[in-house]
Formats: sequence, structure tokens, C-alpha cells
Amino acid sequence: MPAKSENDQPSDTAPLSLRLNLARNGRLGPGKVTLLENIASHGSISAAARRMNMSYKRAWDLVEELNTLFGKPLVAAKTGGKQGGGAQLTETGLAVIGRFRAVERAAEEAAAIHIEALNAEIEID
Amino acid sequence: MPAKSENDQPSDTAPLSLRLNLARNGRLGPGKVTLLENIASHGSISAAARRMNMSYKRAWDLVEELNTLFGKPLVAAKTGGKQGGGAQLTETGLAVIGRFRAVERAAEEAAAIHIEALNAEIEID
Repeated sequence: MPAKSENDQPSDTAPLSLRLNLARNGRLGPGKVTLLENIASHGSISAAARRMNMSYKRAWDLVEELNTLFGKPLVAAKTGGKQGGGAQLTETGLAVIGRFRAVERAAEEAAAIHIEALNAEIEID
Repeated sequence: MPAKSENDQPSDTAPLSLRLNLARNGRLGPGKVTLLENIASHGSISAAARRMNMSYKRAWDLVEELNTLFGKPLVAAKTGGKQGGGAQLTETGLAVIGRFRAVERAAEEAAAIHIEALNAEIEID
């Protein structure tokens, strides 16, 4: 398998996995956020889905779920440019990524000392 | 249904859900930690399982998984006392709870401002 860039898929080796439980029963976890990041970097929902080994329908459903939850688009059709059919993130979409990753970074920093101690117990015995 | 104390089951309304990815592919999340807490407070695996609407086998398997991961017991038979068959947490079991909840509290504190902002977007629209 070719090497993949680190944001293609939610990492299995991250020190922790985190899901935010939002209003209206909205759940925001690494799957949706990584999808948004891949749409931003690859410029279309279909390209993002391919990079994540996810069906286009699944990716579209997740985007729709997010757009519905926030009551406004996080992903919108790209206007202008050479290629048609592209997608880009709105300000809201970018803000959602930023906030999720900020929480994750803070949690990872807080977790580091505890994960190290737990792993020391696991690996010593 | 009777009211339940807050640590009976992992909360559905917590601001976030967190799983630690440990050495040897060990995963530590709210399900296992809440089970340990219930064993500590109810004094047996079977009572803890009942309070969580979990089968005894499932609870036992989770405890065994933790004991195996850490290479020493997190839950041990209770010695002495009037009733037989009880279980109690070892120092390691208590430390695992403490570390997980410490990470969770820190993550919740870091998340609060971001969750508030995301919820404001969700509820305005």
C-alpha cells in the first residue's frame, strides 16, 4: 500500500479518541472532522471519500448530517475555477475543524502524563 | 424506572466521550471505567453488571481484558467480611479510574468554550 498522508483517515495510533456531544443530539468525532479536512485538502467530496476508502454516499450523508445539524452548510459547491463539481469548506466548516482539533490537542496534552504512566504499568508487567 | 445514581452507566449527556489508546492495543473508555467504578461502589462484579444492565459474562470479560492488559489484577476477590463472592478494586484498578477521570475532566475544561460556541451556532439557526 502506498504511504498515506496523516489526515487521510482517523488515526488508529492517536493517544486518544474524542467525540463531542453537542446540542440537538449532534455528535462530532474524528470521522466527520477528518472527512471535512479531506474535502478541504482535495477539493471535492468524492476525492475525499476515495482517500478515506468511504463510499461517496456515506461521505455525502455525513456532510448532509453536519449541514442539517448546524442549519447551514459546512461544505458548499466550489464556484469558479477550472474544474466543475468541486466542493469547499465554508467558514463554519473551517471553524468546526479548528474547534475540534483544539479540544483534541488540549486533551492530548492533559492526557500525556497519564497515558505514559498507564503504559509504563502495561509494559513493565 | 427508578432514578439511577450518576455513575451507573456511561453518560449519554456528558459534553464529550473519550477513549485512551494504550500500549499493546489496549483501549480504555468510559464503559470499562464506569464498570470499575460500579464494582468499587457495589462490591461485586455481578452487582455492578446488574446496575449497568450488562450481562455478568460481559462484565467479567471486560474485567479479564483489563487484568490481562495490565498484567495484574485491577479487580480482586474481596477477602474477609460477612458476604462471600465479593470483589474489590486493587490499587491499580483505583489508579486507572483516577487517571482516566483526570484526563476526562481536563478535556472537558478545555472543551467547554468550544462546545459552547458550536452549540450557539447549532441553536441560533
